[in-house]
Amino acid sequence: MLNKNIQTFIACDCEYENAEIVLFGAGYDGTTSFRAGTRFAPSAIRNESFGIETYSPYQNKDMTDYSYFDSGDLELPFGNPEQVLDDIKERSGIILNDGKKTFMIGGEHLVTLGQVRAVAEKYNDLYIIHFDAHADLRDDYLGQKLSHACVLRRCHEIVGDRHIFQFGIRSGDREEFKFADGHTEMHKFTFDGLPETVAKLKDKNVYLTVDLDVLDPSVFAGTGTPEAGGVSFDELRRALTLVCSELNIVGCDVNELSPPYDQSGVSTAVACKIIREMLLALL
Amino acid sequence: MLNKNIQTFIACDCEYENAEIVLFGAGYDGTTSFRAGTRFAPSAIRNESFGIETYSPYQNKDMTDYSYFDSGDLELPFGNPEQVLDDIKERSGIILNDGKKTFMIGGEHLVTLGQVRAVAEKYNDLYIIHFDAHADLRDDYLGQKLSHACVLRRCHEIVGDRHIFQFGIRSGDREEFKFADGHTEMHKFTFDGLPETVAKLKDKNVYLTVDLDVLDPSVFAGTGTPEAGGVSFDELRRALTLVCSELNIVGCDVNELSPPYDQSGVSTAVACKIIREMLLALL
Amino acid sequence: MLNKNIQTFIACDCEYENAEIVLFGAGYDGTTSFRAGTRFAPSAIRNESFGIETYSPYQNKDMTDYSYFDSGDLELPFGNPEQVLDDIKERSGIILNDGKKTFMIGGEHLVTLGQVRAVAEKYNDLYIIHFDAHADLRDDYLGQKLSHACVLRRCHEIVGDRHIFQFGIRSGDREEFKFADGHTEMHKFTFDGLPETVAKLKDKNVYLTVDLDVLDPSVFAGTGTPEAGGVSFDELRRALTLVCSELNIVGCDVNELSPPYDQSGVSTAVACKIIREMLLALL
Amino acid sequence: MLNKNIQTFIACDCEYENAEIVLFGAGYDGTTSFRAGTRFAPSAIRNESFGIETYSPYQNKDMTDYSYFDSGDLELPFGNPEQVLDDIKERSGIILNDGKKTFMIGGEHLVTLGQVRAVAEKYNDLYIIHFDAHADLRDDYLGQKLSHACVLRRCHEIVGDRHIFQFGIRSGDREEFKFADGHTEMHKFTFDGLPETVAKLKDKNVYLTVDLDVLDPSVFAGTGTPEAGGVSFDELRRALTLVCSELNIVGCDVNELSPPYDQSGVSTAVACKIIREMLLALL
Amino acid sequence: MLNKNIQTFIACDCEYENAEIVLFGAGYDGTTSFRAGTRFAPSAIRNESFGIETYSPYQNKDMTDYSYFDSGDLELPFGNPEQVLDDIKERSGIILNDGKKTFMIGGEHLVTLGQVRAVAEKYNDLYIIHFDAHADLRDDYLGQKLSHACVLRRCHEIVGDRHIFQFGIRSGDREEFKFADGHTEMHKFTFDGLPETVAKLKDKNVYLTVDLDVLDPSVFAGTGTPEAGGVSFDELRRALTLVCSELNIVGCDVNELSPPYDQSGVSTAVACKIIREMLLALL
Amino acid sequence: MLNKNIQTFIACDCEYENAEIVLFGAGYDGTTSFRAGTRFAPSAIRNESFGIETYSPYQNKDMTDYSYFDSGDLELPFGNPEQVLDDIKERSGIILNDGKKTFMIGGEHLVTLGQVRAVAEKYNDLYIIHFDAHADLRDDYLGQKLSHACVLRRCHEIVGDRHIFQFGIRSGDREEFKFADGHTEMHKFTFDGLPETVAKLKDKNVYLTVDLDVLDPSVFAGTGTPEAGGVSFDELRRALTLVCSELNIVGCDVNELSPPYDQSGVSTAVACKIIREMLLALL
Repeated sequence: MLNKNIQTFIACDCEYENAEIVLFGAGYDGTTSFRAGTRFAPSAIRNESFGIETYSPYQNKDMTDYSYFDSGDLELPFGNPEQVLDDIKERSGIILNDGKKTFMIGGEHLVTLGQVRAVAEKYNDLYIIHFDAHADLRDDYLGQKLSHACVLRRCHEIVGDRHIFQFGIRSGDREEFKFADGHTEMHKFTFDGLPETVAKLKDKNVYLTVDLDVLDPSVFAGTGTPEAGGVSFDELRRALTLVCSELNIVGCDVNELSPPYDQSGVSTAVACKIIREMLLALL
Repeated sequence: MLNKNIQTFIACDCEYENAEIVLFGAGYDGTTSFRAGTRFAPSAIRNESFGIETYSPYQNKDMTDYSYFDSGDLELPFGNPEQVLDDIKERSGIILNDGKKTFMIGGEHLVTLGQVRAVAEKYNDLYIIHFDAHADLRDDYLGQKLSHACVLRRCHEIVGDRHIFQFGIRSGDREEFKFADGHTEMHKFTFDGLPETVAKLKDKNVYLTVDLDVLDPSVFAGTGTPEAGGVSFDELRRALTLVCSELNIVGCDVNELSPPYDQSGVSTAVACKIIREMLLALL
Repeated sequence: MLNKNIQTFIACDCEYENAEIVLFGAGYDGTTSFRAGTRFAPSAIRNESFGIETYSPYQNKDMTDYSYFDSGDLELPFGNPEQVLDDIKERSGIILNDGKKTFMIGGEHLVTLGQVRAVAEKYNDLYIIHFDAHADLRDDYLGQKLSHACVLRRCHEIVGDRHIFQFGIRSGDREEFKFADGHTEMHKFTFDGLPETVAKLKDKNVYLTVDLDVLDPSVFAGTGTPEAGGVSFDELRRALTLVCSELNIVGCDVNELSPPYDQSGVSTAVACKIIREMLLALL
Repeated sequence: MLNKNIQTFIACDCEYENAEIVLFGAGYDGTTSFRAGTRFAPSAIRNESFGIETYSPYQNKDMTDYSYFDSGDLELPFGNPEQVLDDIKERSGIILNDGKKTFMIGGEHLVTLGQVRAVAEKYNDLYIIHFDAHADLRDDYLGQKLSHACVLRRCHEIVGDRHIFQFGIRSGDREEFKFADGHTEMHKFTFDGLPETVAKLKDKNVYLTVDLDVLDPSVFAGTGTPEAGGVSFDELRRALTLVCSELNIVGCDVNELSPPYDQSGVSTAVACKIIREMLLALL
Repeated sequence: MLNKNIQTFIACDCEYENAEIVLFGAGYDGTTSFRAGTRFAPSAIRNESFGIETYSPYQNKDMTDYSYFDSGDLELPFGNPEQVLDDIKERSGIILNDGKKTFMIGGEHLVTLGQVRAVAEKYNDLYIIHFDAHADLRDDYLGQKLSHACVLRRCHEIVGDRHIFQFGIRSGDREEFKFADGHTEMHKFTFDGLPETVAKLKDKNVYLTVDLDVLDPSVFAGTGTPEAGGVSFDELRRALTLVCSELNIVGCDVNELSPPYDQSGVSTAVACKIIREMLLALL
Repeated sequence: MLNKNIQTFIACDCEYENAEIVLFGAGYDGTTSFRAGTRFAPSAIRNESFGIETYSPYQNKDMTDYSYFDSGDLELPFGNPEQVLDDIKERSGIILNDGKKTFMIGGEHLVTLGQVRAVAEKYNDLYIIHFDAHADLRDDYLGQKLSHACVLRRCHEIVGDRHIFQFGIRSGDREEFKFADGHTEMHKFTFDGLPETVAKLKDKNVYLTVDLDVLDPSVFAGTGTPEAGGVSFDELRRALTLVCSELNIVGCDVNELSPPYDQSGVSTAVACKIIREMLLALL
């Protein structure tokens, strides 16, 4: 007798009951105003993950020594962002209520809002660490409140002033940078100040959201709005290892890979390695 | 003194007041569930149009002898399909109320609904001719009523039974084909029966919607859901010339070109020629 | 509790015990001498299959009314074609011995040999119907006996003279065409003669192997050695429906899709529709 | 001792002295006004030619039975079309004066003019057969007399009225079609009338120029200005076989393949097969 | 009544009379000897510019506070470089004579010569700052004096010895480097020495020409002759901000983006940001 | 009379007898388990090499002052790795026995084994310097001993413990890193320690194998398994210049360029420059 064809991110194949971290894909890009394609990221990442090793020479750890579960992709109703966020919140909630960490793979950045709603329902006094090229602090975008360009602004309405720490930001309109001055802690262009942030959030519940376009487009071309002048792979890797190993990350996401815009496959491979390093550092 | 940089579909450069046909772009693809990219169609078509001639050896007519105006693209709020349709309806309404024919370039097929609403407001007893690979008659798609997969079903709610004539249809779920049996006049696979339809609609107000994926993907690869077994360019060209020259077309649209999925540029070039032939046949 | 992420060809999701047809992928292309990439076909086809419908308007049948099972992909040792063929033979053998039809998705054409070995072990007096642009009758290729260019020659050694019926062949060296004269029944360029072949094989056990490059490259560009002058999608669809519905097909395969060489996705979509039409006609 | 690395079109490897037909590449596209890239055609064709067979099942002939020589590519001075034409004329002249047929691979269509000048110097009362999507009869293009869009007009100045026979033409401005009425024999859209032309030119010296965009873009996407509605591969193959085997072709060219615009490689493969069929029919 | 479709680089939409800087496109690449495609740069840049912000967090300035005008693209006669340069010179002259700065977007690097001719006619004792991977100091290229590979040599004939300052140069033939020794001031590989150059040219009229291939191909792949080992985006951004804000730049150009060679769109996005930073620093 | 079409890497056009270094291509990728395509590297590199200069401003040397010979590509039997290695060994042996250095262009990394066998037959006490992202020290891969993933393990069996020096390694399974601890000298991530290695191997016979994926994928995307976090072009260039100019390199290879995965051509251009710098430093 033959088995069904189970597909997971590499080495995320334990039983659900035993998993400490549960992945899922939220391949939604319905509010993306320029180049779409992040909808294909979760499956592309899963396929490509078998091209990387389970062992990290950076951390000298191997994924096969830990327990990860990949619960597959949500099927999301394009054209109805509110419903999309509800579906995401529901999936995240199940994982959190089973006492596990939730690890979401987007999709455009808006998907973060759905999971943050679930996490904030479970954890009080939630802090957010945000790696991104873009501030994502617009109040609305062409009149829409639910947009990838507004997602951290919406999160700010949930977690409140000075609970969001932004790094790597190098694009936004003038108003977003002004808003950041009063309401978030924004570190422009680099990860400068990250050790201090980590020290400050030592005993807090922290949500981590990684927009992969924080990377320089030289190494991550496959994204909707590439912004030159970004951080290097090693800078991001080190920053993530620090945050994931030192802080109490209760949930996280990695988003904005758009596979159709990188025919070489490099961007997808980069996303896989970033996810591996995060998964290893989180446990 | 230098002029501003005006960009139009080739030869669509008369003054608005003199125009008999007014084009506009509605580059929305927010409900596209699989491969997006039709948002880029209007500007790609405009650029590519300078690679074709204004003269048609098929019709022995030249665009420079007629009056077309290109009013550019709508800026549409992704993530809010209802608002998108309102914006389209408003633009179409202005054109219709100025006594001109409206010619919309999509975008995904959902945009048709916005313009049909405007046309139906101006013209009673409206008929629709629909060229497409897909029936687009679903009542909802993943719970959404406003979806490219439902657009003709929504149009049917406006124009009523037996007012929609579908040609070239070769894909849909079983329910859509059943619905067509009772409510539309569907011609599967080909344009068989088109002359009879044209004869029947001789004195009617007719709206024409052309989903370019009615073409075989061999000649039109750049679309979200290519369906093998389609009609040839010459079959479509002849069908459109017949419809546009014989019937009273009060508005029309051409949609579902997705330029990123045809790197060769052939699909965009095909769209341009189709539009030229339609523009020439309409006047 | 969340489920594991099961991925199948669309609607191939019954339990193994109930399945009448069992699919598997054999993504091997290690002897491909020119453009490789067919290794990616099975997973590309699985992903893309959710872009097609389960209902066929051609046959007026729906996959949801039948029982198909997708047992996933073999992991094959590149660099060792003999072992590859053994692995394929083993998988095919399990399916056949459980009384089911086996449906393999290649991979390069050499994979056919592995499955034919399994089928020939179970069924005496086996006949092969072969759709292809290439004769594949070389005795060796650069000294190698196990090559995609020799696969039907190897099959001929198993099933014997006049047991292979070839259609659509339009490429080969002079020797291959001479060999065909004496040993197979070759129909060049088209499906002419197929009804007679079907009549002749009425009560036989028949294996069907479909090299998708029998299609014209206009509609199937994504293959290693595209050969202009091929059959159309509708011609292939009709030929396959005839063969699959009229004959006792005990096993079959579809091969030579190379997704990296068709960025538009059309070729993969074509493969999916061909597989759907075969699956529906077989039951 | 090791040999130098000689690269030829497949089977064009005899000694120059013995050759009946001599090929060369003229990869110039400096007047191409839209999408360039035909400069890469000769080397792409040479590389790709090893993916086709030397044997043609259509003609039942094998290139290895004849004598062809590939003299490589001219290095042409971009930015100076007059010099480019001189360089081409010189190469063609050498071949013609050695009593061989000259077979040029473009490049854009302008290169034809250089070779026609050489041929016309050697042969009086020269006739031209021209397969193309475009009339190429403009008197000038943006003020330039030497342009791919004017090449047949320039040839007309050499060979005179009623000495050019055009087939497959489906694009041009109104003036070009008018010019054709009085000065060339133009067959629009198809090869209708070709047998009559062949009969008429039976004992004449004929130059054959093949702009590959006469093919439908479905099978030949890799060209600068694809024009839907073209002839099929089989129609072109048959037309070429007729012309090359029945007439006294003293020189010929195949042009306008632009490899960068067909990532699948199909267009280049098509060009190779067309060239093989011509080479076989010419001898 | 509807407006015409005006397309500009983002925020370059003031009235001509009020503009301090006037942009235009010179999409010529007719002497490009290897990979062409820079002809498409101006329109690609215009389209892509709406994906960047008008606000620069680097300079804390916003384009909406200044007056820029985009006068569109020249239509240039391919095949006649002398005429191309005349057309460019004429456009630049109009802008300069209206007391504005001229900002040209190439096209290949040869276009610089046309504008430098115009600038040198208006300003005596002109200096040129040249950022590039290539020396562009050949006296001729395959016999042609007007070639992208000779453009700075031609400029040197206009502005004279020691009036050209070259930075980032990392490719050329031996003669070019020798020529630079005696006639220009060349800084190889980097921007080392730029502050000293800026100090030296404080009160001079300076023309700035930026060949974007000075950037490392990691971040700027879309160019005809990519040269590894280039400067980073941040290095170029800082160098340009320094030059544009500290010196009296009377005219400038940005050239050698070839959009077809970067399917990801990153190179075009980089060009847009470079242009934004220059536009902001110039005023 | 016209010459045959000889194609070489730029400036590798001396007579064989006079050559000090002989290049050849070994375009085999038959054991590549993920993305194939390195089979196309040798011809792509040859074509692209005419886009670089023969002069290096880094070393201030010109290839035209030295004697290189390009002996073209081996035609290798896909599907039979043992035979492939024999063919490579034979070619390398001829070159070595003629007293020349052998310079092989892969293909996948397995090809190194064939040449190392030839070199080790001629030179006792051979040392290997290995630049790579991957350890390539697996004992077998899916049961196969002859695999790109095992190639340095196989070489270790020839040259013995502590005779292999690895640099830049950043990927492998846990066992490979353990194996390296006892048997090779591995420098992870960077070229740290290279000067010491060079000092140590001063009078030894050294083989140099360069897997180009040691480069960061930002500048070298065209490879089968891109690994972020690699060395820069300048780091690799300097390391190679050091090794090639200071040590007695008796043979070398450059491998793992996969042209189909970098449509921009940057990766191929990078490979060409790396080869030029090596060729100049070796003499």
